[in-house]
Amino acid sequence: MQLYASLFYQAEVTEIFSDEGMVRYMLQAEAALARAQANVGIIPDAAALFITQISQQPIKNIIDFSILGHAASMSGNIAIPLVKQFTAVVKQHDEDASRYVHWGATSQDIIDTACILQCRDALNIIEKQLFQAIHATKLLTEQYRHQVMIGRTWLQQGLPLTFGHKTARWLSSLQRDLQRLQTIKESALTVQLGGAVGTLASLLDQGSLVVEAFAKELNLNVPDCTWHGERDRIVDIAHVLAVLTGNLGKIARDWSLMMQTEIAEVFEPSGAERGGSSTMPHKRNPVAAASILAAANRVPALMSSIYQSLVQEHERSLGAWHAEWLALPEIFQLSSGSLARAIEVFEGLEVNTENMYRNLECTHGLIMAEALMMALAPKLGRLNAHHIVEEACKKAVAEQCHLIDIVKNNTEITALFSVEQLHKIFNPQHYLGNTQQQIDAVLKDVQRKVQSCR
Amino acid sequence: MQLYASLFYQAEVTEIFSDEGMVRYMLQAEAALARAQANVGIIPDAAALFITQISQQPIKNIIDFSILGHAASMSGNIAIPLVKQFTAVVKQHDEDASRYVHWGATSQDIIDTACILQCRDALNIIEKQLFQAIHATKLLTEQYRHQVMIGRTWLQQGLPLTFGHKTARWLSSLQRDLQRLQTIKESALTVQLGGAVGTLASLLDQGSLVVEAFAKELNLNVPDCTWHGERDRIVDIAHVLAVLTGNLGKIARDWSLMMQTEIAEVFEPSGAERGGSSTMPHKRNPVAAASILAAANRVPALMSSIYQSLVQEHERSLGAWHAEWLALPEIFQLSSGSLARAIEVFEGLEVNTENMYRNLECTHGLIMAEALMMALAPKLGRLNAHHIVEEACKKAVAEQCHLIDIVKNNTEITALFSVEQLHKIFNPQHYLGNTQQQIDAVLKDVQRKVQSCR
Amino acid sequence: MQLYASLFYQAEVTEIFSDEGMVRYMLQAEAALARAQANVGIIPDAAALFITQISQQPIKNIIDFSILGHAASMSGNIAIPLVKQFTAVVKQHDEDASRYVHWGATSQDIIDTACILQCRDALNIIEKQLFQAIHATKLLTEQYRHQVMIGRTWLQQGLPLTFGHKTARWLSSLQRDLQRLQTIKESALTVQLGGAVGTLASLLDQGSLVVEAFAKELNLNVPDCTWHGERDRIVDIAHVLAVLTGNLGKIARDWSLMMQTEIAEVFEPSGAERGGSSTMPHKRNPVAAASILAAANRVPALMSSIYQSLVQEHERSLGAWHAEWLALPEIFQLSSGSLARAIEVFEGLEVNTENMYRNLECTHGLIMAEALMMALAPKLGRLNAHHIVEEACKKAVAEQCHLIDIVKNNTEITALFSVEQLHKIFNPQHYLGNTQQQIDAVLKDVQRKVQSCR
Amino acid sequence: MQLYASLFYQAEVTEIFSDEGMVRYMLQAEAALARAQANVGIIPDAAALFITQISQQPIKNIIDFSILGHAASMSGNIAIPLVKQFTAVVKQHDEDASRYVHWGATSQDIIDTACILQCRDALNIIEKQLFQAIHATKLLTEQYRHQVMIGRTWLQQGLPLTFGHKTARWLSSLQRDLQRLQTIKESALTVQLGGAVGTLASLLDQGSLVVEAFAKELNLNVPDCTWHGERDRIVDIAHVLAVLTGNLGKIARDWSLMMQTEIAEVFEPSGAERGGSSTMPHKRNPVAAASILAAANRVPALMSSIYQSLVQEHERSLGAWHAEWLALPEIFQLSSGSLARAIEVFEGLEVNTENMYRNLECTHGLIMAEALMMALAPKLGRLNAHHIVEEACKKAVAEQCHLIDIVKNNTEITALFSVEQLHKIFNPQHYLGNTQQQIDAVLKDVQRKVQSCR
Repeated sequence: MQLYASLFYQAEVTEIFSDEGMVRYMLQAEAALARAQANVGIIPDAAALFITQISQQPIKNIIDFSILGHAASMSGNIAIPLVKQFTAVVKQHDEDASRYVHWGATSQDIIDTACILQCRDALNIIEKQLFQAIHATKLLTEQYRHQVMIGRTWLQQGLPLTFGHKTARWLSSLQRDLQRLQTIKESALTVQLGGAVGTLASLLDQGSLVVEAFAKELNLNVPDCTWHGERDRIVDIAHVLAVLTGNLGKIARDWSLMMQTEIAEVFEPSGAERGGSSTMPHKRNPVAAASILAAANRVPALMSSIYQSLVQEHERSLGAWHAEWLALPEIFQLSSGSLARAIEVFEGLEVNTENMYRNLECTHGLIMAEALMMALAPKLGRLNAHHIVEEACKKAVAEQCHLIDIVKNNTEITALFSVEQLHKIFNPQHYLGNTQQQIDAVLKDVQRKVQSCR
Repeated sequence: MQLYASLFYQAEVTEIFSDEGMVRYMLQAEAALARAQANVGIIPDAAALFITQISQQPIKNIIDFSILGHAASMSGNIAIPLVKQFTAVVKQHDEDASRYVHWGATSQDIIDTACILQCRDALNIIEKQLFQAIHATKLLTEQYRHQVMIGRTWLQQGLPLTFGHKTARWLSSLQRDLQRLQTIKESALTVQLGGAVGTLASLLDQGSLVVEAFAKELNLNVPDCTWHGERDRIVDIAHVLAVLTGNLGKIARDWSLMMQTEIAEVFEPSGAERGGSSTMPHKRNPVAAASILAAANRVPALMSSIYQSLVQEHERSLGAWHAEWLALPEIFQLSSGSLARAIEVFEGLEVNTENMYRNLECTHGLIMAEALMMALAPKLGRLNAHHIVEEACKKAVAEQCHLIDIVKNNTEITALFSVEQLHKIFNPQHYLGNTQQQIDAVLKDVQRKVQSCR
Repeated sequence: MQLYASLFYQAEVTEIFSDEGMVRYMLQAEAALARAQANVGIIPDAAALFITQISQQPIKNIIDFSILGHAASMSGNIAIPLVKQFTAVVKQHDEDASRYVHWGATSQDIIDTACILQCRDALNIIEKQLFQAIHATKLLTEQYRHQVMIGRTWLQQGLPLTFGHKTARWLSSLQRDLQRLQTIKESALTVQLGGAVGTLASLLDQGSLVVEAFAKELNLNVPDCTWHGERDRIVDIAHVLAVLTGNLGKIARDWSLMMQTEIAEVFEPSGAERGGSSTMPHKRNPVAAASILAAANRVPALMSSIYQSLVQEHERSLGAWHAEWLALPEIFQLSSGSLARAIEVFEGLEVNTENMYRNLECTHGLIMAEALMMALAPKLGRLNAHHIVEEACKKAVAEQCHLIDIVKNNTEITALFSVEQLHKIFNPQHYLGNTQQQIDAVLKDVQRKVQSCR
Repeated sequence: MQLYASLFYQAEVTEIFSDEGMVRYMLQAEAALARAQANVGIIPDAAALFITQISQQPIKNIIDFSILGHAASMSGNIAIPLVKQFTAVVKQHDEDASRYVHWGATSQDIIDTACILQCRDALNIIEKQLFQAIHATKLLTEQYRHQVMIGRTWLQQGLPLTFGHKTARWLSSLQRDLQRLQTIKESALTVQLGGAVGTLASLLDQGSLVVEAFAKELNLNVPDCTWHGERDRIVDIAHVLAVLTGNLGKIARDWSLMMQTEIAEVFEPSGAERGGSSTMPHKRNPVAAASILAAANRVPALMSSIYQSLVQEHERSLGAWHAEWLALPEIFQLSSGSLARAIEVFEGLEVNTENMYRNLECTHGLIMAEALMMALAPKLGRLNAHHIVEEACKKAVAEQCHLIDIVKNNTEITALFSVEQLHKIFNPQHYLGNTQQQIDAVLKDVQRKVQSCR
């Protein structure tokens, strides 16, 4: 539905997988097939030229979409009625050329090849988006690498970390997403041309030559054999997008939890009418997170359809192949849409460092118990240190006061550390382990990967 | 995508879940809310009248869909910008009335109630389709109840049954689908009105009265409490459609396997350009089966999204609710589309009884081995009968001849049965167990259920 | 894996679906079949008696599970090797009786009927659990029906409600779960007996009589026709459990969010070593929620497998049926396990009302802006009231002070309301709409349903 | 359930993911951690030595599994109670060493690292299986590369191909599976060590050194940063297995359809009690196909759970992580089990070439209509050729005779071709297009890939 497009999708990718988009890519495949056959000498150069020229005319001038849509249910796909319409148009211009439209191909050759062309263009858009997302999270990481906040596990406060460490992990996952996408672009974008049962029988002994020429025309890989019924490359492509969407879901979950009124550490960018409510003036609805989490709920389900579709019958299947037509475009649109929403947030994220500090205090020092124990251990032995700290914690909870106040009154401890030293021990900034090394490693990795792409 | 609509969807249901359809149902909900509040005395009758009248104007006259679509991503749903546009239109006619638009409601109240209204209308269409499908499979069952054919298990020939027994099982499952649908219409169609967090606080002490009046206006059930965050009724509805789609998938699998060139027992109705191929004149592609099997692949996946969406946060969730918006309409469209395809096939199915007889012969009588054994057992004892038949089968296989020819030369057997009697034993028509009783039971059940609906 | 059983499963249900459990139910089906056939007069009473007696012996005495497990891969199911072993044991006692074991049945008859018996016993356990869960949430609802807390939407604070309203919604969903379960017990528990292809040919003209007698022996429904290949009843059962698991997931999500350190409104029951951490003394891990949320993640996926399994081939399928064997028991175990975890929490939930009050204050009165507006509207007109409140909110945010303090200094407002009246307006207790009526409706509904079960 | 293990699983992989296996890998991780810390100088060498030695004792001697299982539900995982038991055992031998067990680690570090170790060993087993499957399908391809049979699309007969072309496509997909698996072994096997929130704070400034030493001990990759909450590597691993299972599902679908009684072109290997039926002597149940198709139904569903699990909360999540524990081992077991079943079939496949020839004849020459048209086109023009052939086909169908007999009596055609030439045109062997080139390309690719692994 168009009304939801701005919520869940990305405009350019949606255009690629629109009705018009699909037909345009199919005609592109037909034209390339004609040129390939002209190159091999099977059809006249002039025919290929005509077919190509007409395929490039404004799509609405040459194709009647309502006839096409109606005919689809008769033929079980849109290639058959499309070829019919297209041939008729070519015939109006050049009867001879019209004889060579779709020569030797089966419907699925055109539909599959067009699908791969759609994938390529959409993957390129998503790749650009990923660069943008990586850039934005890199900036966040650099800016907040020392900004201390509480780390949370099982939705409970744990130990401190920095906000830049959290964004470095986001960044690290996005960088792996980019790597997956670039790998798949190399391996999975493969032309399909097999004829009725994959043998290209009607091209007699020239089948393999035509496949190579066809791939060359479209700048796609040549497969070792026909893949009408073996769809694993399609699944590989979908997988890359599903992981991306899931990774974004994790990130959106993080920021939406951090946006909770009681926590209020970060916020989606605000703006006119964005996520607000006139009668509830305190509300800052995480609207981008909602869209992304919806996608991260849906895409796993769509993936299960995609995997089911691997089980095809014989040379070309019924049903399993058709199911792909609906699931794959939806996965593309949801992943690029999620990425678009995420980029907006990464680039406009409002960070409330004050609340990060406030939340570090909400256990009244208990989150620093381990740090205290680690400071005491070398002097008192680990077991003893553990015991003393445990008692102090119990006391702090029972008396509802700050752990450091208990500690300051514990002579065993004050015998070892001055008040100043204790404050240093209780400073989350000093209990961050290898946080900075991890951030450096992520940034270095990103630097290397991104440079190598240029 | 529109191009695939005729392949996978059903036009009326698609219209209900279109952009325009959705907005129309939302305005219907807004108008009913106004009337309910007028009835309770919260807003002026005149305001309710104005709101209702304007809500019934041609939708394109009052709503600008491109503004709506654009605003959705800001507010996270379309209710907020829709109410804004609608209020502005009402205001042009009557400023006072415009103050009462959407009074006390939250966006989700309108979206959820509109969704239930969409469900009701779509379920009614599907119910009609089910009556049609039941009628058609009932006719098939009556016509072919004695038409013997081979039963197949694990894709292997087993024992004989009748084609009418197969269609009786189809019919039985469709009749259960109807029953599920009628039950769900009773229990799940429930109005939603809760206000911001489900307490209807802004209606002060009149919340419950308004909910009842709202339900009455729309002829929907009154819930015991708000269900913004408890979505099990939605899942119940989707389940009914998913079972229907799966049952149709089973049926389509059956007929597509029976349409295999080598088997050729039934065929989808033929027609101009339907499933044919000019260069492969023998092909009869099961195009309806392909559409239905694609739906039966997709809907289970969409269901997993629907079940995931049960896990919502607090009073109203983010993401999980949004995911429903895309999955539920798709399930409706695929199930009603599958049903439309199936009805075409049920009503126009071509049955080749000749090939059914031919295929009964393809094991050269081995499928009747059990029948022979059962005939011999009372006379020779079961163990002995089993032994004799086993030997005869081995011999028939080894000598590549028909089992009855081996049997006719077996003196142990010919001592008991005349050739005529043996032919009767080998006649599949006489080894059908309680096939006819099952068919009668199914038909009786259908008769009773369908009558009780009238 | 056994190690996870206490985390995810429930012991009694796990036993039902264990290897031993499954075999025991299968022998129960075999024995009932023999008795049914004796009743109809097909086999000797003595044989049925012997078969029944031996089927009731300690399972390990009569069945060698390692042989069974090994043979399964040869026959594609365990019924064939089980019948073989069981027949041999019967033969040791009575050769004549051994001839009548499994008479006229196919493997799937026994496996499917045993599955239905497993379902019945497991559903009965889950029904008892549901009564317990309903009782516990009813107590929570009665206890906390007036305990005010903040309502949250989109993970943001919205308006106040009561904790008992939240638990009433939990209760309402559990009560619907009970209703679904009781309905399914009536409709879906159906015997299966069809023989090789569903015609019961080997029982000649007594098939239907035996089916009825078989159903009577096991106290199961009689189907109109064989359902080897039509699995919708199985899906109905699974659906009921999946909705239950999802509803519990929603509830667990709620309480785990409320357990967040910063929110701390409720806690899972504490206990020795439960969810704690020695070095992070403040941690209260929601371990029950983790188990339930894991189940609520898994069951939707398993459901998609169950729906896919509807698409079976012909009379008895390959693969689709087998997939059921693994998915259905897992769904039973996860749903009953989740329910067990949830009951522990319902019965031992620690509620921190102090923090509920504290969290109501965290927006410094902004959550009461709507209440204030509703109080001013009758006196100032809604538009004017809205304007005044909006300004006051902005001022409160800008000056970082409590909204009531701004309001107290606003002469337009103080002209209308005394300080005492303002405090009443700002008291969340007085802005709860129809919360109590909803709670009453839920409790009344539960009362009626639970009584009608007794 | 153990009873199904031989049907669906593979013994070695099942052992890896058994309770004992899991605990063994966890202790292996604990021991490696100790040694890593000794290497860095954090704990005494002697302690690391002790810990390692004890970790290698027979598992049942040191761990009480029933206590472990019971404690799991208290702590939410098995690492906490396992460390407790293990520490106690170490303490019995050396109190000092016991202080360093699990030093600085969090439960998830051990569980995740153990999981990666399980994955590695299981992937290695599956890699070996893949080599075996590739070898077997390569042999089939070489043997049957010229064996002509009918190609089928949409379950309808299309044009001829060779059986070796079909197996070459199987082989091609298995070779891509191998490539995916080898790639994933390089990229995804990464150690996890982050401590409570991923900062390794308790290791002070030595965290990164320990991570590196830990990875070195286990021969795993070093991650750039902690991945407790970013699970995409796990999803990558699962994806490789899911594609493998789906590809096998496609292959099993092919052979089970070819095993249909009416088609009978190939058979699963026969053997004592394998897939047979005493009363239905003609049955050859495709039992391996049933197991594989069941896996190919289940794994897509499990994948949707795996993708859902990407959406984790903060530093370490609840629920989503737990769901992985059940889904991932099941995917491993089903994929390796399917592969084991498939290898049996590949190595023992019975091919009935006679029936392949027979089935080529079942349309009475119609499948060769296109070949005839291609032969006539150069002499008569394509349009004219098409017209003549179409008429001949209609006549053949109407008169129920073989197309070649119609053709032999068509003077237009006999003017161009002798009877001998016509028989050559109608010979499927001469209408195979680039079948052999495709086979060569697949074999060459396999040759190159497999060699490069040695």
